[in-house]
Amino acid sequence: MQDRIRNAALHQRIMSAPEAAAMIKDGMVVGMSGFTRAGEAMAVPLALAERAKTEPLKITLMTGASLGHDLDKILAEAHVTARRMPFQSDPGLRRAINAGEVMFIDQHLSETVEQLRTRQIPGVDIAVIEAAAITEEGGIIPTSSVGNSASFAILAPKVIVEINTAQPLSFEGLHDIFIPTYRPNRMPIPVVTPDSRIGLPYIPIPPEKIAAIVLTHKQDSSAAIQPPDDETRAIAGHLIAFFLNEVAAGRMDNRLAPLQAGIGTIANAVLHGLIDSPFHDLKMYSEVLQDSTFDLMDAGKLTFASGSSITLSEAKNAQVMPEFERYKSRLILRPQEISNHPEVVRRLGLIAINTALEVDIYGNVNSTHVMGTQMMNGIGGSGDFARNALLSIFVSKSTAKGGRISSVVPMVSHVDHTEHDVDILVTEHGLADLRGLAPRERALRVIDNCAAPEWRPLLADYHARACKLGGHTPHVLEEALSWHVRLRDTGRMQP
Amino acid sequence: MQDRIRNAALHQRIMSAPEAAAMIKDGMVVGMSGFTRAGEAMAVPLALAERAKTEPLKITLMTGASLGHDLDKILAEAHVTARRMPFQSDPGLRRAINAGEVMFIDQHLSETVEQLRTRQIPGVDIAVIEAAAITEEGGIIPTSSVGNSASFAILAPKVIVEINTAQPLSFEGLHDIFIPTYRPNRMPIPVVTPDSRIGLPYIPIPPEKIAAIVLTHKQDSSAAIQPPDDETRAIAGHLIAFFLNEVAAGRMDNRLAPLQAGIGTIANAVLHGLIDSPFHDLKMYSEVLQDSTFDLMDAGKLTFASGSSITLSEAKNAQVMPEFERYKSRLILRPQEISNHPEVVRRLGLIAINTALEVDIYGNVNSTHVMGTQMMNGIGGSGDFARNALLSIFVSKSTAKGGRISSVVPMVSHVDHTEHDVDILVTEHGLADLRGLAPRERALRVIDNCAAPEWRPLLADYHARACKLGGHTPHVLEEALSWHVRLRDTGRMQP
Repeated sequence: MQDRIRNAALHQRIMSAPEAAAMIKDGMVVGMSGFTRAGEAMAVPLALAERAKTEPLKITLMTGASLGHDLDKILAEAHVTARRMPFQSDPGLRRAINAGEVMFIDQHLSETVEQLRTRQIPGVDIAVIEAAAITEEGGIIPTSSVGNSASFAILAPKVIVEINTAQPLSFEGLHDIFIPTYRPNRMPIPVVTPDSRIGLPYIPIPPEKIAAIVLTHKQDSSAAIQPPDDETRAIAGHLIAFFLNEVAAGRMDNRLAPLQAGIGTIANAVLHGLIDSPFHDLKMYSEVLQDSTFDLMDAGKLTFASGSSITLSEAKNAQVMPEFERYKSRLILRPQEISNHPEVVRRLGLIAINTALEVDIYGNVNSTHVMGTQMMNGIGGSGDFARNALLSIFVSKSTAKGGRISSVVPMVSHVDHTEHDVDILVTEHGLADLRGLAPRERALRVIDNCAAPEWRPLLADYHARACKLGGHTPHVLEEALSWHVRLRDTGRMQP
Repeated sequence: MQDRIRNAALHQRIMSAPEAAAMIKDGMVVGMSGFTRAGEAMAVPLALAERAKTEPLKITLMTGASLGHDLDKILAEAHVTARRMPFQSDPGLRRAINAGEVMFIDQHLSETVEQLRTRQIPGVDIAVIEAAAITEEGGIIPTSSVGNSASFAILAPKVIVEINTAQPLSFEGLHDIFIPTYRPNRMPIPVVTPDSRIGLPYIPIPPEKIAAIVLTHKQDSSAAIQPPDDETRAIAGHLIAFFLNEVAAGRMDNRLAPLQAGIGTIANAVLHGLIDSPFHDLKMYSEVLQDSTFDLMDAGKLTFASGSSITLSEAKNAQVMPEFERYKSRLILRPQEISNHPEVVRRLGLIAINTALEVDIYGNVNSTHVMGTQMMNGIGGSGDFARNALLSIFVSKSTAKGGRISSVVPMVSHVDHTEHDVDILVTEHGLADLRGLAPRERALRVIDNCAAPEWRPLLADYHARACKLGGHTPHVLEEALSWHVRLRDTGRMQP
């Protein structure tokens, strides 16, 4: 324990989770660690859910991103979560959000702490942060994610630390904690390459702010990623062919540009596809580092990866963690404000690969809302990256639900990314390069290259009739969302 | 002429506009100066339109933003403009775009030159730049706008310069030409306050690239801005009350934060409203500097203004230009890539005020498309600013066309700015502060505070029925665009 809590005076703050959780009062804003199911505090939120059985307890819960261990489900079902931001991916919480029971504020992941420090939104009353250790000065060494933990701990008047002894001490030195100068005196953020180290290896807070320490021992939840299938392999293949063309055209060299890939099966499969490519000396500047990051390193393809969390499958975790020191010099975990910062994304010129729920013929992307109304997870970092990337790429399978849904529609039922921010669309059928094209031209490429063949005649017919009505972005307004109405009413988009 | 063309060798490149225009061949990509009707080259494009009467001549025309002197109309009607980016505001060109005759690529104004220098879009074959003078080294001193002129001139193999002797030589020293380091070696852009000077007072190009010099003498077109009316005054009043609240809440002081205001009557009126406010020592970091900029300076309210162009009414121009030296030390004109750069916008923490064409109850904004299909002007810089501002504010009158159109609708027919990027909506009826709210909460505020009273029952009824269907962002999909369908079919949104 001397290794884990190096400030002797802090040992007396060790207490049980229910004792620590008692500091969290009804109506508080609570900032918790956790990003893509990595590094979340667990003991204190479970104690909150337990307490809510016997007394009124509702909080605003802010995190980095999604939580593991069903915590969002448990807290939602215990009615602890009244308000939630900036991201989630839990079916139980999702149900409550869509029923209007939980108020969900879906945010660009780089923006939450910016809004907090300028007091645009109510401040964090207490932070609950998982740590590998606390330094003698009171510095908090995070675990498998940084997320918003640093700003939560710095801005909150009180901090509860969960020391998780299942998280290796070898994480020390992995993190790079940098907080931008507050406006109006902000200076440039000095990240100029993915491997720029600009901050401290711990979250600097005065030790007296640490109000409680809870000891835990838990593994991170495993990544819920499906293995590549024929379709995700085809998507990867189209993208690699495109990159080869970009190199042949002299727009980049075989090192490509720093890569960002959203969380999930398709983006992970695309990165896996790079293992058998001629590209080399790749770098990542992303938010979540998945199995593919380590597989690319092992294949000698990837020289450095910067992110805000590490989220691995059970098998990959079992391989990586015992030999973590072997990878550490090639890794940085940053606050999500920095991993996703528009300033840095634009400067580095990323290749950003994110997943679309549906796209329309003009290249607008829906990342979040099923049938325009039902929240899936949230926009996450996709907007932070897509807007400022060198190449903004969205990937999707061309159909869903056994072909009953076309992912390419006349008009998306909800817009997260406008056509201005979408350069390339890829499905298993092909790739549409939309750069420098007007909407009418984009539509032809999206329909011909990305839609499933059985949906192309319907889309082409819609587009042709819309063009007859005229406009820069032609639509038949009364039909634009009719595919979604049919899906809602009949369970399929087909007429 | 020694004053205007200081490199003696260049005097022999002086020629007529038709001679210079002859260098522009059918199919070329031409990059021209001009931003919000200020500083456009005129003689050469007019010569192109003339030539197109007798020979096939189609070009891709890139500019900074909109052109004055009906140039976009003349070029479109002469069928010279085959492709156009990144912005326009001309009724004649608009007609051709909406008829599908001209391919218009509507872009974030900060992004065009980024795409050019990475060759994401076809390169500029020739640049046509209006200048106040050429230095001995061949440096081009722009006139009333910088726009994309610097990168066009640097990237193009050939440059035609129009020396406009109607533009005052006192513009020299006004401009700050800075080009970001090319990726992957880009360094931070060192603008840290609106008055940061980081570049050169001229566009540096080798004099041998100047293929032709054309002498002109023309005034800029006047700004087409309407005077404040009761509604725009009410909008200004609501915003000023809001700023007072922000100061009272301690979120800012009476100097506010650097201001950006989109072009147009409403934004100009809002800035005018600040003249009679308690705020002082204001700064602007905007793209276009309008009458209000100079009025605020004269009122002692505004200490500095950075933009990419100066666009004035005829009366204001007549007052400002003769005494320009009096203002110059408080002004900078930058390339639009820098005036609108996400890195700088986020760093400075702007208050961004832009105009919406329509908004929906959830706070999504349509800036561009009438009835979802017909292009008005383009997204311009609104996305560059709204995404990264400290406060992203959109203003609109609550109705249009004598009350036949509600600017607040169930679902916008086209999305340019998603709810993630919209903090505040203002109409003459009131202000909706949407910060930290979930969509269902946003809807109540938008309907109650911003919609015209006669439209509120219809909107509230829609929202209530949508909420019964459920969802994070509730909609009745088959009705979502029905107001627009009615407008298209009957000329009014009323049922």
